[in-house]
Amino acid sequence: MRKSFHESIKELKNEMLKMGSMVEEAIHDSVKALKEQDLDLATQVMDGDDKIDDFEVELEERCTRLIALQQPVAKDLRTIIVISKLATDLERIGDHASNIARMVHQIGKEPLIKPLIDIPRMTEIVTRRLRESLDAFVNLDIELAKKVAREDEEVDILDEQILRELLTFMIEDPSKIRQATSLMFVSRFLERIGDHSTNICERVIYMVSGERKAY
Amino acid sequence: MRKSFHESIKELKNEMLKMGSMVEEAIHDSVKALKEQDLDLATQVMDGDDKIDDFEVELEERCTRLIALQQPVAKDLRTIIVISKLATDLERIGDHASNIARMVHQIGKEPLIKPLIDIPRMTEIVTRRLRESLDAFVNLDIELAKKVAREDEEVDILDEQILRELLTFMIEDPSKIRQATSLMFVSRFLERIGDHSTNICERVIYMVSGERKAY
Repeated sequence: MRKSFHESIKELKNEMLKMGSMVEEAIHDSVKALKEQDLDLATQVMDGDDKIDDFEVELEERCTRLIALQQPVAKDLRTIIVISKLATDLERIGDHASNIARMVHQIGKEPLIKPLIDIPRMTEIVTRRLRESLDAFVNLDIELAKKVAREDEEVDILDEQILRELLTFMIEDPSKIRQATSLMFVSRFLERIGDHSTNICERVIYMVSGERKAY
Repeated sequence: MRKSFHESIKELKNEMLKMGSMVEEAIHDSVKALKEQDLDLATQVMDGDDKIDDFEVELEERCTRLIALQQPVAKDLRTIIVISKLATDLERIGDHASNIARMVHQIGKEPLIKPLIDIPRMTEIVTRRLRESLDAFVNLDIELAKKVAREDEEVDILDEQILRELLTFMIEDPSKIRQATSLMFVSRFLERIGDHSTNICERVIYMVSGERKAY
């Protein structure tokens, strides 16, 4: 029996959420590896990135096939195209997690210059925002999308704060420059992950209301 | 008279190339602003980013409308979907140019810690690669796509080299840390722009041959 069209869209959304969970786990593990200086875990995150890349290609393929087979119009077409675009956002987020894992290797076993507080806090915010932005898409929840989009500023402020603090460390003690630079990049990767969630929310807002950046 | 379908696709491709030129100019101007410490030019790049964002939305809309109206299948459908994805890559590249311009403001009128040589060289490579990756798409030139994809390593090596050199500057003279950090981010933004060209090439390769990362 031929699957109904709306069943197929629901399946696509579920696959996208599955990819979202994979990516969320990659972010979580990369920062856990950083905190615990667990190089094996960092390597796992980097190795796992191929699986995320494959998932993107597979999801895009399914989107294209569904459009070709069912020739949807209007809202349905837009939904499928957005899923295919979100797959790319998720793949890029996976790249950032992998980049964080690379920094873990760069730091190696050298003692951390300070206990990590702001970076895990930032990680918590960006993973929650990622989850919420995908929920906003699945449920077409424009209020949630607007809320999550607004919170981007919070992440940017935290990133600036981390950068400033690390600069101070570097100026006080040049032997800390290398590690501080690696941590700066970690912060910047997290900030980029945050930007992707904002992009996802903007797509949801545009899809539902035709408004852009209206928050 | 109704436009032929292939005329419409050709138009889309031309619009995409126009967006490509806008983005290329933004990269060029942001690095010119850096070299000449021209804060006004940097501001212009940042202000111009809205125009690039609008272009993306407009191009995506046209892609979606064309799919809805003409219900293309197979190769044509894939081409339109890829154009819509390239629009997103170009928009993100525009963001990076704007980020470089932000760094120009961060450095301000403080004398540059060294004459910029590698950053302009890297800029030349990434803008050429961007242009060539779009050409590879328009002409479905898989050999060009493979060549451009391979050159990503060159950009990565240059980025690493710039980072290492800046680290040395910072360690020798902590008063240079702030500016060196800004320059590091410029280098990293250029490296990200390079990654987008690689993504574009990979899409072309996949579209034409079904191969992934086969270079």
